[in-house]
Amino acid sequence: MDKIKIFSPATVANVSCGFDALGFALNNVGDEMIFEKTGTKGVTISNIEGANLPYAIKHNAAGVVALAMLNQTKADIGIDIQLIKKVKPGSGLGSSASSAAGAAFAVNELLEKPFTRLELVEFARIGERVACGSPIADNVAAVIYGGFILVKSYHPLTIVKLPVPKELMVTIIHPQIEVRTEDARNVLQPAIPIADAVRQAANLAGFISSLYTSDYKLLSKSLVDVIAEPYRKGLIPHFDTVKTAGLQNGALGVGISGSGPSIFALSKGEDTAEKVSNAIREVYQNTTIDFKMYTSAINQQGIKIL
Amino acid sequence: MDKIKIFSPATVANVSCGFDALGFALNNVGDEMIFEKTGTKGVTISNIEGANLPYAIKHNAAGVVALAMLNQTKADIGIDIQLIKKVKPGSGLGSSASSAAGAAFAVNELLEKPFTRLELVEFARIGERVACGSPIADNVAAVIYGGFILVKSYHPLTIVKLPVPKELMVTIIHPQIEVRTEDARNVLQPAIPIADAVRQAANLAGFISSLYTSDYKLLSKSLVDVIAEPYRKGLIPHFDTVKTAGLQNGALGVGISGSGPSIFALSKGEDTAEKVSNAIREVYQNTTIDFKMYTSAINQQGIKIL
Repeated sequence: MDKIKIFSPATVANVSCGFDALGFALNNVGDEMIFEKTGTKGVTISNIEGANLPYAIKHNAAGVVALAMLNQTKADIGIDIQLIKKVKPGSGLGSSASSAAGAAFAVNELLEKPFTRLELVEFARIGERVACGSPIADNVAAVIYGGFILVKSYHPLTIVKLPVPKELMVTIIHPQIEVRTEDARNVLQPAIPIADAVRQAANLAGFISSLYTSDYKLLSKSLVDVIAEPYRKGLIPHFDTVKTAGLQNGALGVGISGSGPSIFALSKGEDTAEKVSNAIREVYQNTTIDFKMYTSAINQQGIKIL
Repeated sequence: MDKIKIFSPATVANVSCGFDALGFALNNVGDEMIFEKTGTKGVTISNIEGANLPYAIKHNAAGVVALAMLNQTKADIGIDIQLIKKVKPGSGLGSSASSAAGAAFAVNELLEKPFTRLELVEFARIGERVACGSPIADNVAAVIYGGFILVKSYHPLTIVKLPVPKELMVTIIHPQIEVRTEDARNVLQPAIPIADAVRQAANLAGFISSLYTSDYKLLSKSLVDVIAEPYRKGLIPHFDTVKTAGLQNGALGVGISGSGPSIFALSKGEDTAEKVSNAIREVYQNTTIDFKMYTSAINQQGIKIL
């Protein structure tokens, strides 16, 4: 294989109860990326559409990942990358993860698959560090594994792929504003009462159980965030109104995607997801803030070869 | 039915990663209790063996539960209770939960089952409050539901019954010393760093997943406690030596049962459980501390009618 074109999905991390541990990928929202072998060793980026991202390999989430993989395998090829970004950086939808994990997946294909999925997550984290300053794994693991994923631990890195209840749908609203990752981090409390830690853990545990049993009632009751949402929601205009509108129209839960500003709502079935989508749209149509909306099933397979 | 004799199991709560949220019941360790209808309204306790517990109904974990159930149903009967305690109070093996939940179950049978399992847990919590000062649900829910249980939330009380991998065995060592619940509480930090809360939640999440998939490797890696064990283990003589001996002999994990002093070890299969048991016994045989040991499968059904 000399050339590969892929769809690399957008992702939702944190997912209310799963702060820094849970993520899932979207089905029909994400970037397109083209990777092509070249005769000259090293990595080039010949085209970036849809976002103002660096062409310098060392500063580009996809570029550093590809370079690290070529270096590690001592492969006698070069790789050129084209990025067609559909999801803006700073959206809270894992834009850099899509680039980084997409590169890990595609370069692995071009190299004839020397690496395991877990190793691809490790490579993709290099891209996350370049783009976000921190080698977080929840978004990139969701891109590579698909479905819901749990980052069980970092030392050693342990990813658990979780089942997805069949009728689960997600609605996203992406207000076109910037929430700086630094602000989203700084607004959190450095420490929390043990009782809150227990509540968060029990909600995540309930959520995991609900994925295995397709217990939508338990899933809904488990989508509670006591760590981040109470503090971060102040950075997202109209968050409470959106959440109320979603829940009143049948959403199982509404929360912040990643560190925002995107908001996700999970629903059972397409009809409810549509109702939820309409209700949330109406909230933002009554403001002066531009926004994009997406409705999607949960992506079960991760990256797709186009 | 005028009389019922039951086996009410001992329980392990906290279970490393499941501080204040997880519990399970033992198969062959627990109390016997006899409940008999009497002609005189109210509750009496005619016999207590094996422990120095109050006969006064209001101060007895089984007594208050039975009385609350008779009061709520306005039943025109009285009930006499006999307690044959096999598990000592203060063991960390849910002795009061066994009494309280046993009473809830048995009185419900004598009243011809007006209550759901969840309501029985609510009644049993009244007994926990009398015995421990706090109406905790993890032990009593494990007694009533059997298997592993998750206390998903208290408001509203939500209990999730979890599956049990078939070959899972537990070894318990109960050093005959007292750890005061108050000391066990006071030694904990009131607040923990968010990163620790995330680790605890992710380990519990991994553990829940491992129960559904019988993934013993993940189960083992998830049995990590960053909230209680680092602080409470100082109250339990030779804890680290016991833990090392257990793990070196194949235990999946070793942790504090409830708030101690009992220590539990989970193993895959009876042979490993036996090896683990021998290794742990040897540690305590080299001390001057008396101890009891138990090896048991996980109890799947909760209370048994004898």
